[in-house]
Amino acid sequence: MKMCDSADVKLIDFMRSKTGVKTSFHRVPDQAIKCGFGMQGVCCRLCSNGPCRITPQSPKGVCGASADTIVARNFLRAVAAGAACYLHIVENAASNLKAVGLGSTGLTIKEPELLNELAELMGVEESDPASQAVAVANLVLEDLYRPRGREMTQVGNLAYKPRLKRWRELGIIPGGAKSEVFDAIVKTSTNLSSDPVDMLLHALKLGIATGLYGLTLTNYLNDIMLGAPEIRIAKVGFSVVDPDYINIMVTGHQHSLIGVLQERLAAPGASAIAEQAGARGFKIVGCTCVGQDLQLRGAHCANVFAGHAGNNFTSEALLATGGIDLLVSEFNCTVPGLEPLCEQFMVRQLCLDDVAKKANAEYIGFDIQAGDALAQKVMQAALDSYNNRRGKVEVDVPVHGYDDALTGVSEKSLQKFLGGTFKPLIDLIVAGTIKGVAAVVGCSNLTAKGHDVFTVELTKELIKRDIIVLSAGCTSGGLENCGLMSPAAAEMAGEGLKGVCRKLGIPPVLNFGPCLAIGRLEIVATELARALKIDIPQLPLVLSAPQWLEEQALADGAFGLALGLPLHLAIPPFVTGSKLVSRVLTEDMEQLTGGRVILEGEIVPAAEKLAEIIEQKRKALGL
Amino acid sequence: MKMCDSADVKLIDFMRSKTGVKTSFHRVPDQAIKCGFGMQGVCCRLCSNGPCRITPQSPKGVCGASADTIVARNFLRAVAAGAACYLHIVENAASNLKAVGLGSTGLTIKEPELLNELAELMGVEESDPASQAVAVANLVLEDLYRPRGREMTQVGNLAYKPRLKRWRELGIIPGGAKSEVFDAIVKTSTNLSSDPVDMLLHALKLGIATGLYGLTLTNYLNDIMLGAPEIRIAKVGFSVVDPDYINIMVTGHQHSLIGVLQERLAAPGASAIAEQAGARGFKIVGCTCVGQDLQLRGAHCANVFAGHAGNNFTSEALLATGGIDLLVSEFNCTVPGLEPLCEQFMVRQLCLDDVAKKANAEYIGFDIQAGDALAQKVMQAALDSYNNRRGKVEVDVPVHGYDDALTGVSEKSLQKFLGGTFKPLIDLIVAGTIKGVAAVVGCSNLTAKGHDVFTVELTKELIKRDIIVLSAGCTSGGLENCGLMSPAAAEMAGEGLKGVCRKLGIPPVLNFGPCLAIGRLEIVATELARALKIDIPQLPLVLSAPQWLEEQALADGAFGLALGLPLHLAIPPFVTGSKLVSRVLTEDMEQLTGGRVILEGEIVPAAEKLAEIIEQKRKALGL
Repeated sequence: MKMCDSADVKLIDFMRSKTGVKTSFHRVPDQAIKCGFGMQGVCCRLCSNGPCRITPQSPKGVCGASADTIVARNFLRAVAAGAACYLHIVENAASNLKAVGLGSTGLTIKEPELLNELAELMGVEESDPASQAVAVANLVLEDLYRPRGREMTQVGNLAYKPRLKRWRELGIIPGGAKSEVFDAIVKTSTNLSSDPVDMLLHALKLGIATGLYGLTLTNYLNDIMLGAPEIRIAKVGFSVVDPDYINIMVTGHQHSLIGVLQERLAAPGASAIAEQAGARGFKIVGCTCVGQDLQLRGAHCANVFAGHAGNNFTSEALLATGGIDLLVSEFNCTVPGLEPLCEQFMVRQLCLDDVAKKANAEYIGFDIQAGDALAQKVMQAALDSYNNRRGKVEVDVPVHGYDDALTGVSEKSLQKFLGGTFKPLIDLIVAGTIKGVAAVVGCSNLTAKGHDVFTVELTKELIKRDIIVLSAGCTSGGLENCGLMSPAAAEMAGEGLKGVCRKLGIPPVLNFGPCLAIGRLEIVATELARALKIDIPQLPLVLSAPQWLEEQALADGAFGLALGLPLHLAIPPFVTGSKLVSRVLTEDMEQLTGGRVILEGEIVPAAEKLAEIIEQKRKALGL
Repeated sequence: MKMCDSADVKLIDFMRSKTGVKTSFHRVPDQAIKCGFGMQGVCCRLCSNGPCRITPQSPKGVCGASADTIVARNFLRAVAAGAACYLHIVENAASNLKAVGLGSTGLTIKEPELLNELAELMGVEESDPASQAVAVANLVLEDLYRPRGREMTQVGNLAYKPRLKRWRELGIIPGGAKSEVFDAIVKTSTNLSSDPVDMLLHALKLGIATGLYGLTLTNYLNDIMLGAPEIRIAKVGFSVVDPDYINIMVTGHQHSLIGVLQERLAAPGASAIAEQAGARGFKIVGCTCVGQDLQLRGAHCANVFAGHAGNNFTSEALLATGGIDLLVSEFNCTVPGLEPLCEQFMVRQLCLDDVAKKANAEYIGFDIQAGDALAQKVMQAALDSYNNRRGKVEVDVPVHGYDDALTGVSEKSLQKFLGGTFKPLIDLIVAGTIKGVAAVVGCSNLTAKGHDVFTVELTKELIKRDIIVLSAGCTSGGLENCGLMSPAAAEMAGEGLKGVCRKLGIPPVLNFGPCLAIGRLEIVATELARALKIDIPQLPLVLSAPQWLEEQALADGAFGLALGLPLHLAIPPFVTGSKLVSRVLTEDMEQLTGGRVILEGEIVPAAEKLAEIIEQKRKALGL
C-alpha cells in the first residue's frame, strides 16, 4: 500500500511489515487532491445560500462577504476552537487541584513550594497548601468564567511587563477567557463581523488567554499536583512496550486525569491482580502529549510509566505492535483511525472526557474524588482485554526508539541544571558559541514532507547553524524517536553548540514535553529577556511550528505572535486567499506586537530565514 | 444583470429599475455552482492534513474520521454557533434589564405586571419591580455562566413538564448555556469526539438552551423593558420610508439596544434638531428582526418608528431608495452587501456591538447607562449624513408593501384577542374548521426557489388547506410584504379558515415578529398542549423553516426537535453526506423526542406532507 513518508525510518520499516494495517499514513495518498478553496480559506459554508467560494469571477459570497472577511472569519473561528481546547484543559486541571485542596481525593500536593510560589504570584494570602490550592484554583476558574468585558485578574501577574504594556496599548488584554472564545464564535457567524482586522486582534486576545491560562497555568497546576519535571534519561519509542505487562496506552492532554491512575496502578494490590493473570503488572504506555507529560514528570511515576512511545501519528502503528491491551483516552490527539485498529487488535477503549468521546469507546465520566473506583474500572477493563486478546493477537514489538533521550526539561529544571540561573546560556549566546534559540514546537502532520520530516530536518539544519533547539508538543515525540534528544546528536550540531553539548553531556535539542510546555518555552524566553533587560521581540529567539496540525496550534501561534516572536509555519493556516489577512499576519503584525508569521515550505530556506532573523536580532543587540 | 427571483414582485420591479445597484440577489448567479462536498457536509478543514473530502474512493479523512463523524462535527459546530448568537442576545438583554433595575439608565420598567409574573415563575422573592428586575437578570446571567456540569436553574421553571421529563430521560437537560456552547466547540475540534450520536444529543441540549433562554427569556426581558406586544394594524414595506424625515435604518436582533434610542429620538429636543436641518424629525426604519421587534412592540414606539421595511435580503434594496440617512446595526442579519451600498448612497454606518462590527462602520460601544450620549451620537451622525447626502443622492421610494398588516401578535396578545383563553382556537381545531397550526418560521434565503418564494408559496398552500400559519423571523418580513398578513389574505384560505378570518377581521397568517418570537410560538404550542392535557408532539402542529439561512436557524430547529415537533426544511442542513446523521435527524429522532426533520425541496409536496402529519395527529387525538 502507498503511504506517506516519515522521518522515523524504523517506524516506516515496521509499518511496511504490517501489510494488513491501515493508518493515517495510508490515507494521505487517498486525500492527496486538496480543495484549493479550502486551502486558501475562501470557502464559506455558514449559511444555506452557500457554500460560497471566492474566485476572480465571483469575488464575493452571496451575502457580500469578501475574501478578507471569509478568511478572517474562518481563521478566528479556528483559533477560538483551539483556544477552547486548551481552556478546557486548564479548567479541568484547576477543578482537580481544587478537589485535592479540599482533601476529598486521597491525593496529596506533590510540590507545596511551587504552589506557594504560584500563590504568591497570584496574590493569594492563604499560607497552608490546602487553602492555597483551593484559592489558586478558584482564581483560575473565576477568570475563565468572567464575562468578556472584565479583564482576567492573573494576566497582569503572569505576563512580562513590557508585553503587558504593549498589549494594553493594542487593547488586546483578554476578558474572561471562555467568553472571549464564545464571542469569537458569535463574531464569526453569518452576517455578524465583517472586519478582518478586528477579528485578527481578537485572535491575539485568544492567544494571550491560551498562553497564560491554557498553557502556563496548566503546567503550574499539574506540576503542583503531579510533581515538577526533573531532568533524567529515559527510554523512548515502541521499545518501551514490554509484552510481559498489561499495557494501557494513554492519549490526550490532561495529566491530572491520567495522574489519578499512576499510583493506584503501581500499588501492590494492583500488581497482584495482574500477576494472577500471568502478567508482571500494569504499565502505562505514553502516547501524544499526555504521554509527554508523564515522561516529563517521569521521576514521579517511574514504577508504572513504561515510557513515551510516540506522537499523534505514531499512535496507530503502536496498536499494530499487538502489545497494547487497553486504550484510555481523555482528549485529542486521539485520532479516529485508532478505533478500527482497536477492533482489529482487540483492544478495549475507555474514554474519560465526553468532549473526546470516541464512537466505540466506553465513556467513564471522570471524577477525581472517585479515583479508586476509576482505577478499579480501568484495571478491570485492562485485565479483561488482556485475558481476551493475548494469545489471539500477534505481539510484535519492534526495536524502535532510543534508550537515552534526555527528558524532564522545564523552565525550572533547566535553570537548575545551568546552576540556578540562565546566565551560562546567556553568556554562550553573547559569546556567539550558541547563536540563538529556536523553539521548534507544535504538532506532527503528514503533509509537510511527511510525518515529522520537516520538523526533524529543520531541526538538523538549525543545530548545524549553532542554534539550540527547544521542543514541546508532538514535535518532541518525533525528535526523540529520531535520536535528536539523545546526547549523541551533539555530533550533528555546529562546532559551537557541539562543544557545549559534549561538555554538558546533553543533546542539542531539549525536550520540554507536551504542547502545553510551549508555555514553559515562553517562560524561558521571558527569563532571558528579563535578564537582558530587553523585551521579548528583541531576543535572538525564533519560533517554528513547522508541522502544525490542529486549531490548537493556531491558538499557540497566536500567543507567539502576541509575545512578539517570529513564527515559522511550513503550511499556511488557510489564509492565503486574503491578501489583507496574509499581509497583517506576515508583515503588519511586526508593527503591532513585534511578531510575524513566516511562511516557508522548504526546509533549508526555512532554516536560513530563521538563522538570518537570529543574526539580525543579535546585531540589533550589538552581539 | 441576472438576479434571483423574489416572491415580492414590487421589490423585484424596484430592483430591476436600479441598474447600478448590486445586491445579494445579483450574486446568487455568480455563486450558482455549489461545492457538492460542502453541501453534503463531508468536507473537513479542521487540520493541516486537510482539507479532506469524503468520496467513495476516500471514505475517511487522513485522521480516520468517517463521513458520520465529519458531518456530525460540522453540524454540531454550526448549531453551537447559532446557539451562541442567541445566548449573546439574552445576555445583553439581561444585563440591560439589570441596569434598568439598578436605576442607572434613566429608563423605567414598562411592564411591571409581566415582570412580577416572570419573577414568580423564576422563584424570585423580591416584590418591588426594581429588585425583581435585578434578581431576574441575575438568575439569567448566573445560568448562562454556569459550568456545563450544573443544570441551569430556570429550565425546570420554563419548560412544559412532560417535555422536561423526556429530556431528563434522554440526559439532555443543558448545563450552563455558554459552557454547553463552549464544550460543543471543543468536542468538534480535531481528534476529539468521533461519536455522531453524542454530538446530535449535544445539539438538542443547545436547542433547549437556545429556546428557553435565547428566545423565551429574551422576549420576556424585552417585553418587560420595552412594552408588551399589542395587536394593531401597521404599514409595512418600503413605503414606510418618508423622505421628509431623517431616516435611521436599523438591523440586528437586540431591541434593548435600539430601545434606548426610541424615546430620545422622539423627544421635542431631537425633533427640533432635525427641523433645523429642514427635516420633520427622526424616524427609525425597521429592517430584519430588530425591526420586527420594534413593529411587534410598535404600540410603545409609534412616534419614532416608521415601520418595518423588510427582511434580511430586502435591506440592501432599501438603501437603494435613497431615503435612508444612517444605518445603525447591532447584530446579524446585517449582510456585508450593505457596506458598499452605504458608500454608494452616502449612508453613514454605526455599529453598537463589536461582535457585529462592520468593516466600514464606526463602532460605538453600547452602554445602556449612557443612553443620552448614545442618542446624541446617533442623532449627530444621522444629521451629518443627512446634510451631507440629501440633494446629492436620488431619493426614489417606491410604492411597496401594505398599509394594513396585522401585527403585535404574541402568546399573550393573541390569548387576549381570543377572549383570555386559547379555547376558541382549540374549539375551531377540534371542530375541524381549522385543521391545525403550522409555524412557518426562520430566515429568508435566496436559494430555496428565490427570495421568500418557498415561504410565501408554502404558506399559501397551507392556508388553502385550512391550516392557520403563525410566523416569526424573516419569514414574517416576506409574508407581510406579500400581503399575507393583511386581512384580505383570508380570501386565499380554505373555506373553514377563511370564515374564521372574515369573522374576526384577521389574516390567515399571524405575525409574531422576529425569529426570537419562535419562542412565543412554542409557548402557544405549550399552552395548547396544556389545555388539551397532552404532550407537545401530539398536537396537530408542524414547524417549517423552509428558507432557513443561518446557523441560528439550526439552533432554533434543534429546539423544535427537542420539543418533539415535526420540522420541515426545504434545504438540508449540510448533513446528507452521512447516512447515520440523516437517519437520526429524519427518522430515529421521533423515538427520542417525538420530533423529526422532514426534507422536502418542492412546495406542494411539502405542504402535502405537513398537512398529512396534521391529519395523522388529529386522528391520533380522535379528531
